[in-house]
Parts: sequence; structure tokens; C-alpha cells
Amino acid sequence: MKRKYSVFLGNVGTCFDRYCPSYAKSFTTKELFDRVASIDLLSGVDLVAVPQLLDDWDIVKESVQSTELSVVSIAVDHFTQEKWRQGSFSSVLPEIRQQAINETKKVMDLAAELNCNSVTLWPGQDGWDYVFQADYLQERTWFAEGIKEACQYRTDINVYIEYKMKEPRTHSYLNTAPTTILILDEINESNCGAILDYGHALLGYENPSESVALFKKYGDKLKHIHINDNYRYWDDDMIVGSIRQVEFLEFFFWLRKTGYDGWMTIDQFPYREDGRNAVAESAIWMDTLETLLDKTNNQEIEDVLKKKDAVEASKLMRKILLNK
Amino acid sequence: MKRKYSVFLGNVGTCFDRYCPSYAKSFTTKELFDRVASIDLLSGVDLVAVPQLLDDWDIVKESVQSTELSVVSIAVDHFTQEKWRQGSFSSVLPEIRQQAINETKKVMDLAAELNCNSVTLWPGQDGWDYVFQADYLQERTWFAEGIKEACQYRTDINVYIEYKMKEPRTHSYLNTAPTTILILDEINESNCGAILDYGHALLGYENPSESVALFKKYGDKLKHIHINDNYRYWDDDMIVGSIRQVEFLEFFFWLRKTGYDGWMTIDQFPYREDGRNAVAESAIWMDTLETLLDKTNNQEIEDVLKKKDAVEASKLMRKILLNK
Amino acid sequence: MKRKYSVFLGNVGTCFDRYCPSYAKSFTTKELFDRVASIDLLSGVDLVAVPQLLDDWDIVKESVQSTELSVVSIAVDHFTQEKWRQGSFSSVLPEIRQQAINETKKVMDLAAELNCNSVTLWPGQDGWDYVFQADYLQERTWFAEGIKEACQYRTDINVYIEYKMKEPRTHSYLNTAPTTILILDEINESNCGAILDYGHALLGYENPSESVALFKKYGDKLKHIHINDNYRYWDDDMIVGSIRQVEFLEFFFWLRKTGYDGWMTIDQFPYREDGRNAVAESAIWMDTLETLLDKTNNQEIEDVLKKKDAVEASKLMRKILLNK
Amino acid sequence: MKRKYSVFLGNVGTCFDRYCPSYAKSFTTKELFDRVASIDLLSGVDLVAVPQLLDDWDIVKESVQSTELSVVSIAVDHFTQEKWRQGSFSSVLPEIRQQAINETKKVMDLAAELNCNSVTLWPGQDGWDYVFQADYLQERTWFAEGIKEACQYRTDINVYIEYKMKEPRTHSYLNTAPTTILILDEINESNCGAILDYGHALLGYENPSESVALFKKYGDKLKHIHINDNYRYWDDDMIVGSIRQVEFLEFFFWLRKTGYDGWMTIDQFPYREDGRNAVAESAIWMDTLETLLDKTNNQEIEDVLKKKDAVEASKLMRKILLNK
Repeated sequence: MKRKYSVFLGNVGTCFDRYCPSYAKSFTTKELFDRVASIDLLSGVDLVAVPQLLDDWDIVKESVQSTELSVVSIAVDHFTQEKWRQGSFSSVLPEIRQQAINETKKVMDLAAELNCNSVTLWPGQDGWDYVFQADYLQERTWFAEGIKEACQYRTDINVYIEYKMKEPRTHSYLNTAPTTILILDEINESNCGAILDYGHALLGYENPSESVALFKKYGDKLKHIHINDNYRYWDDDMIVGSIRQVEFLEFFFWLRKTGYDGWMTIDQFPYREDGRNAVAESAIWMDTLETLLDKTNNQEIEDVLKKKDAVEASKLMRKILLNK
Repeated sequence: MKRKYSVFLGNVGTCFDRYCPSYAKSFTTKELFDRVASIDLLSGVDLVAVPQLLDDWDIVKESVQSTELSVVSIAVDHFTQEKWRQGSFSSVLPEIRQQAINETKKVMDLAAELNCNSVTLWPGQDGWDYVFQADYLQERTWFAEGIKEACQYRTDINVYIEYKMKEPRTHSYLNTAPTTILILDEINESNCGAILDYGHALLGYENPSESVALFKKYGDKLKHIHINDNYRYWDDDMIVGSIRQVEFLEFFFWLRKTGYDGWMTIDQFPYREDGRNAVAESAIWMDTLETLLDKTNNQEIEDVLKKKDAVEASKLMRKILLNK
Repeated sequence: MKRKYSVFLGNVGTCFDRYCPSYAKSFTTKELFDRVASIDLLSGVDLVAVPQLLDDWDIVKESVQSTELSVVSIAVDHFTQEKWRQGSFSSVLPEIRQQAINETKKVMDLAAELNCNSVTLWPGQDGWDYVFQADYLQERTWFAEGIKEACQYRTDINVYIEYKMKEPRTHSYLNTAPTTILILDEINESNCGAILDYGHALLGYENPSESVALFKKYGDKLKHIHINDNYRYWDDDMIVGSIRQVEFLEFFFWLRKTGYDGWMTIDQFPYREDGRNAVAESAIWMDTLETLLDKTNNQEIEDVLKKKDAVEASKLMRKILLNK
Repeated sequence: MKRKYSVFLGNVGTCFDRYCPSYAKSFTTKELFDRVASIDLLSGVDLVAVPQLLDDWDIVKESVQSTELSVVSIAVDHFTQEKWRQGSFSSVLPEIRQQAINETKKVMDLAAELNCNSVTLWPGQDGWDYVFQADYLQERTWFAEGIKEACQYRTDINVYIEYKMKEPRTHSYLNTAPTTILILDEINESNCGAILDYGHALLGYENPSESVALFKKYGDKLKHIHINDNYRYWDDDMIVGSIRQVEFLEFFFWLRKTGYDGWMTIDQFPYREDGRNAVAESAIWMDTLETLLDKTNNQEIEDVLKKKDAVEASKLMRKILLNK
């Protein structure tokens, strides 16, 4: 069975950061789709509804058809435009809050056109930077109300929300796994669920495996995964497995244990690499580590977990990873 | 009106750490009470029910009477004894879980003897250190069930739970403000509430002011405050205000805005200082910063929060702090 | 006496980050100069020799004249162009290393045209992201050799180098204050010195005050200051004083104690603020805090430092900051 | 050839931390030696000259003989006694500074008795906690002078110094690899060298592999290794390899590349584990990872390093670790 691995379309292209406006030549939308399709382990693609993508909408549709990639999700653009600079759903300006909702609805319709049943929200501009800058109570209430209204627009399309501790704001409202659960309970719409971005989870000293358990325990709310690696202090968006290996083994184990059956979408920023090749590396690492887990007896892992013994845990890690 | 400032009894004594078993000569229980009482700004004291304190129980009672200090809370000792080394309420051993509950009940009775209506739980040993070491689902369920059972023992005594990201475990189960809210909802007992330790909140990149808002928004669950200062990476337990000043101003503002009317208990580890004098410093900083806030027009602050403007926030900080 | 406060020209303009290519409308070079000149507390400006600035070179010269601002330094652009994506002085490609040197020489000549005696190097692309990606010995040697060659080009122009733990690379070669001292000793040219960026220093858990002492102790190497504030985990480039206050008081004290007589250049990224106003706030905070220090008896501070006593330190902080 | 693996004697015993004075029953000195000797991969032991060890000095000598373990080093106790609470070599009290020197000399003599040619200094109490608490210039000068004097006592015994960013102070003077190099240059004695503790290096966002290169480049100063693992934010002192695997592969590679031929001393705090078994796990992980490196062609690694290409680095990691 092919694993359900996908990637953000733009990841196989080029990146910029706050210093360097372009690290390499850019690719057309068609080229990006073909680059994704050239990676054997991938069967899906995730899109971000930035203005340029919408301009290329016909090309998107043709490329989806020609590459036979599944469109896993479309992200609403609440983060690349000046108008969101003090927030989208949580803006103090009513007209901006309304636009945040309207654009979500619009992307829900676009998703349906591509037989994609999920839009994703990463409200990266919703938060604050300085103390004494925000009314946390009022803005958080607007935030949940806006997403709720968008969810109610059409229940055949899911709305998944993605948390991140910080960046681009120094502090995000949707910051951690447990905050996400609280907000999902507040929104209380059945088509609304959580995205766990592996690297985002690390930012708040979460163990993503434990976050998977948390989402399971409090309402089975995990619906989508973004995956990458980092050094724990910042969202470095690096090749999966290039830093941590046993931690990913534990993560894949917990996804299986909790019955997660969604996609895993690679989400990297390969600033200085060829994007296609850097993404392929992530896919190979993921498949390699999952294959090691395929060969391991689940009961043996469960037995170790019940012992609460670090020495047994260490032996188990070595056995799964290195068969030693 | 005297502010409701308290301190942990042991804070005016001596400390040890994992290297140095004693940084200074120790004090008797009676001396500790007298040292607390000698700090003019304090009117309460918080106790920890370690074996030595229970041995001195008569002295405790006499000292409470002689010093006229209010006993604000008693912490159950789930962290200083070998038996809790793999957890208390969440232990994989049923007999340990039962002891965790029983000792809580016992301390609830002791609290009643001192006209103290709150026991506090800091389950610092409940968590894990290594990946593949724990069944996060099962242990978290035991954790909430055990606290719930303890709460039901007598509803005239409150049970307040204190979160901390880590230490002594590398990962605690009760780790952040939003996790605390989820667990309180799971426990669902009206005498159960949250403690916010200012320094603990910083460990998970929380802004404690925003955590106050979170507790307010999701059930008005904040019942007690521990206060100290640190460098954000570790629970340094330092003198309040010695590192951050405007952040404390914002914190006191949010406590007032959300109607918090409980105590603020100083919780320091003055390893190398005279404990009494280091605690007195915290109290003076707190009172000094609160006095600055007393002089500030609340509406002016509220107006700034509504603007979502960092420049206005910066001007406001300077005005409150320095009248410039 | 007017304090020697400056700002990077671009700081009063607009910013972008890796998500949002533009947070606000941009300004012309002439407008930027006028915006700097409109801030009363500033008497200098620092430039970055990006291609656009060089295109506007005549306007730069006119604006310097019309505003009467001192040009404090010009930064060589080793970080905004694709060619530097795997490093400048430390690149594995000899032709890139040569370009890094040549562009430095070119900017040294440009500086002379503006009666500016200092160029600055922030080699942000020189470093690595992944383990097993770099030969740390070879690349570090090229790094020092290249800067040395540039320094030797003309000794009437100083070359100051700026350290930063990370970003845009996950790891920079020029990463901390002590590393900077080692590299300066390796370069061993009298016109080469160190820049301390306050926020960069925080990234590696340095106390910038102690870094000032370190530069003093090991060769009196501190020649320039960049100033801003952040939350310690990332180079947030925020308004000076908006987060930390007593730490800045200690910093200004140590600059005075060690005889620093250079400029302090504000270096912010006011993504969501009006740049001019955000920069003005930094200048006002700096001047306000320095004024508090002006009023303080230096001997009183020195006496406290000699006691090695945290309680005395805490009292001193409160006295300087709040006169309490 | 047996690898040169050692362990701190106390690591196979029991631990305490600032909350729990005892996590398990303790062992006699004789038992500790036997526990070390029972770990097949270990051939050395490192001691800490705490008062209890000195009381047992005859037992130590007998145990060294009976176990045939090499005594790799003896650490001077500058951290477990009240008198060092405001520093040892850097204390503001002249008599304490003199004691720090004298005790070092005494341990140098003791080392000679055991045919051990190295004493180690971990000056964990030398540093500061609060801003405005210390004269960084004066205290750092005393610090280097004191160690220099001790080194000169007898040149047949080496004095190795161990850096750590923080703990038990919030800030240590001997904090990072480059600071250590500067201080070694200041001390300028040929029997003085550096210890790299893997976990300490991580605290300051060092990559320990790069620190090895730094010590090589600036005087070939690395003389001893302490090894353990942690989550990067704190000195968790965990089982080697239980968190990071490819990072250790890179570390062992750089030790070989730079010709390091000293010992690797396991330095853990197995609070909740059986110490002997937790230490044995570290040794097995180390040997397992080194064996993977033994099987790898060094030139292949060197070739990748020269490419400065993350995709190639990722492929190489997977090949070494998993042969995939």
C-alpha cells in the first residue's frame, strides 16, 4: 500500500526570507506540479491559495489532472498580504475580520472544485508582539467566532486549523496543541479539526507524539499532519529525519496507535537546496523509518510503555532503529 | 488595604540543589514562621506537607497563632519522596496511585485544622523523561481520575493544581495553562482550580498575562498565584521584578481586569541569599509595581489595548513605569 | 551633549518576512533620510550597500548633506543576494570568496566618499544548517583569511564584524562574543573590530553587559553597537526597552565603565508599525534610561558589584529605575 | 581494541535534585567500583574529590587495584560545599580564592597517588545570577589567575577545565567553548586544557562537533570528553544516544578527524533508573554508533563535507546510520 505522503506545492520551488528576497530562480505552477509528481513516494499535493495560485487556477486544474496527484488540502491565505498584518479573524477592524471569513468561504468552494474536502487555516498573523498591545480576551473571542462562521458555510468541506507558538508574530493565539483543543471546543463544529505541524509542536517544548495522544484523548481532533524537522528553538522547516530519528519513530508509532489515517504533508523551506530533492529526502526518511516500524512487533512496544522504565525504552529504541 | 501577599514558609530558609546539599545553615520551623512574620508586606504563609513539617505539627499550629499569619494553602508532598519517583497520581503502580490520593485527603483534613481552605498539588514527578517511556493516554487518564477522587473527599476544601513544563521530569503531564484547563474540565469538580506560577508559565513561552486571560475565558479557573522571576529558559525562582518590570505591570493589570481576588504567594529559591531578605525584596518590588498601577487610569490602558498598536503600547509602558 | 544615537536607514521604512513580501507601502531613499532626520534624538544613520542603495548613490550623497546626519557605517551586502546562499567569505567556491572580498573593498571606497570611516560585515549566510554539511575547519579558515585580506586593502577604513548565533542559517560561524574575539585575533588587523548587536547577544544566552566586559578584557575590541530588544529566543528586533529595562540599565553602565565612546545604532524590524515612530520609541527609551543612569552615583553601583549580593543588586536596580 | 570509555563513579549510584533528597538507596564506595567494573565496555573511572570520597581513600585505592579500572581523572570539589556558594577561584573573598587553589593542589597530589595524570575543574559556582550583581572584569581575572597558579604547582599533572552555560548559577563564567579557549590562552600553561561535556555544549546552542573543530583550530586544546544526551535546553544528563543519533555520529567523526585520542567519560544523572544499567546503555549506544562509523569510508564523508549540500548530507546520514 502506498503511504499517504503529500507536500506543499511551493516546497519544491524556491524560498525567500526576511533578508534575501530570492535564493534561486522560480518555477511556474505547471513545473511545480511536475516536480512533485516526479517524487515516487508522494501521491498528494497541498496548495496555498495565494493570489498567484488563483491567477493560475486553470493551470492548477489541468496539472491536477495530468499528474493524477490528490489535492489533499488548500490553505486559505491569511498571512501573505499586508491587510492581515494585525490579524485576520482576530483583527480589531470588523471589515478585516469579515474578509478573513469571506476568503475562507471562497477557498472552501475552490476546494470542492478540485474534489478536495479540506481547507486549512494557519492564522499566523493572529497574535501579538508586545505586552500591553492586545486585549487577549476580546481578540480570542473574535478569533473563534470567525472560524465558526466559516465552518458553518458548508459542512461538506472540513476546516482544519494549524497551531504554531510564534512567527511571524512573537506570540500567536493558536499556539499549542492544548490551546487548539480549547478553541476547537469553543468553535464546536463537526467539520472543524486540528492540524499538527511536527516542527511547530517542537517550538513549545511539546513532544509531538504526546500531542497526538492529547488530540486523541480530548475529542479525537487530529485530522491532518504537516511534517518537517528543526532544532527545537525555531521553525527551521528542514528535511524530516535529518535531526531526529527515534523521536520520529515514536511519532509514527503514536499515529498508528491512535488510529490516525489522514495524510502526512511535507512542509519544508529548502532555502539553499534544490526543493524537489530536499522534499524527496524527507519522503525517503519517512518511508525508511516507517518501514522499520512495520517490522516491529507492536505488542513489544506496548509492553515497554507499561513498564515506565528508561533503560527498557533505550533498548527498544536501539532495537527498532538499528536492530541491535 | 493590605495586599494579599504570602510566601512559602521554606523560602525564608535555606535551599539545596542537585550538586550542593546545603547552601547555608537551616532554621527551625518556629524560626521560619518568625522570619516570615518579620516581613511587613506579608500577611500569609503557604506550607508544604513534607514529613518534617508534619512532625512539627504542634509547632506549626502555635506559630500560626503567635504570628497571626493566614495559612493560605498547604501543598501535598508528591515530589520529595523516593516512592513518587515515577509519578504519583499517574504511576503505573496502583498502590502508589492510591497513596497519592490518600495523602491528598490527609492534607485536606490538616488544612481544615488551620482554617485553611485550600490544598495545592504540584505533581512534579508525574510525567516522563525519555521517548518510548510512557503510555501518555493511560497515565494521563489515571492522573485526572486520581485528582478527581481526592476532590470528592470533602468539598469544603479546595484542591488547586499547579502546572510546570518540566523539572524534575524532562516533561510534566500538567505542563501548560491550556493543558491545565483541559484537565480541570476532565476532573470537573467545583472545588478544583488552577494555580499559575509566574515562572512556570514563562517556561513554555507563555506570557503569564495571557495565561490569566485564558483561565478567565475558559471557565474562570484561576484560583491561586505563585510568583517569582526567571530568565525564561528555566525555573530560576528569583526575586520578583529583578529581571522583568513592564511584564509584571501587565500581569498585575490582567489580574485586576479579570477580577482575580486571591493571594499572591512568593515562591523563590534564594540559594545564595539570606532567604528572608530575598523574599522581602520580592514583596517590595510587587508592592512598588502595583502602586504604579494604582496611580494609572485603567481606561487609558484599555484604550491602548483596543488600538493593537505597538508604538502606543510602548508609550504606555513608559508612562506607567517611569511617568515619562 | 547629544547622545550618539543612529539608526539603519531601512528601519524607518518597511519590512518583509518569509511569509509576507510586503507589510506596508515602501519609501524612497530620500524619504527614508528625511524620516530619520525627523527624529530629534538621532544624529547619525547607518546604511546597507544593497544594489538599490548603490543605484541611488547620488541621492544618498545629497540626502546626507541636506539632513546633516553623520553616516556612521555602511554594511557590505553579504546576505541579500542569491550568490551568497552557501556563504560569502567561507564559500566552498573560490570565485564567491573572491567576490566577498572585492565587494568589501568596494564599500570601503564608498564609505570614504561619505566621510564614513567604518564598514560593517554581517556574514549571515556564512555557516551551515545540517550536520555533516560542512568542514568547519576549512570554512572557518577561509572566513578569517577573506576578512583579513579585505582589512588590508586600506587601513583608514575600519572593518567591524557582527556576530549572531543563527538566522538566516541555523548556525552561523561568527556566532558569539568569544568566537568573535578568537576570529579577530586570527585576523589580527588593527582596523578590524567587533560589533555587538544587543539582540544577537541574547540569542546565545549572553548577558550583553558581560559581553561588553569580555570585549574589554580580551583586547578592547568593541567598536560599534546595534541595539534592539527581543524575547531571548529569536532576533525579534523590537523597540529598545519594550521588554527589558534593568538589563538595559546594566548594559549602559558597562558601556560607560569600559569607556565605550562609539555610536549606538538602532536596528529594528518594525514589521507592523510605522517604522519612523517605532524607531523614535527606541531612541526615547534609550535616552530615558541613560538619563536615569546619569542621575546615579557610579561609585554606588561599583560598591554593590563588589559585594556579590543579589539582595543589594535588587535594591540598586529599584533605586536607579524607580528611585524607590 | 577496547574503546577508551569511562564513567563518573557516582553515576552508577543514586541521585538527588533540588526537590527530592534521595531517589533510591545509596551504595558504598566499594559497591560503586564493582558496579562500574561490571560494565563490559568500560575500562576507566572518573572520581570527584568530595569529602566522603576522601574519607574512603583507602577503599578507593583498594578498589582501583581490585577492579583494574584506570582512574581517568579526579574532579576537584568546587561545587558541593557551602563555602563555594558565591564562587571559588572568582570569589570576592581572598581566603576562598586561596582555598580553591589549595584544594586543587591537594587533588593533584591525590591523583598522582592513583597513577592518574589529570585533575578536572568544573567551577559551577563561579558566575552570577542577577544583573548588577558582579564585576565581570575583576572576577574573571581572579578566575584565570587562580587556575594558573594551581597549574604551576606541578606540571606532571594536567588540569582540565569544563565549561557549562549555566547551573547551578544562572550564568557561569566558564560558559562556552570559545570562552574556554580565551581563558586557556589567558592562563597559558601547557598542562591546562579543555573538557567538552557534550550536553553542556548543547546548552549554548553549540553543535559539539563544531566545538571539537574550534578547539582543534585554536590551539588543539581538547583533552577530555564528558558524554550524555539532553533536550538542548537543560543539562538533563540522559543516556547517550537516547535522543540524538546522527548528531553523535557526526561528533564521533569529528573526534576522529581531529585526532582526539583521550577518554570519553559518561556523565549522567540517572535519577529514576538503576544507575549501573543506565550507564551501560550509554556505553552500548556509543559503541554501536562508533561501530557504524568504523564501517564507513572516511573519504566518502570528507567528500560530502566539501560539497556544502544538505541533500548530500542527508543521504550520507541515512547511509551511515541505516545503510539505506
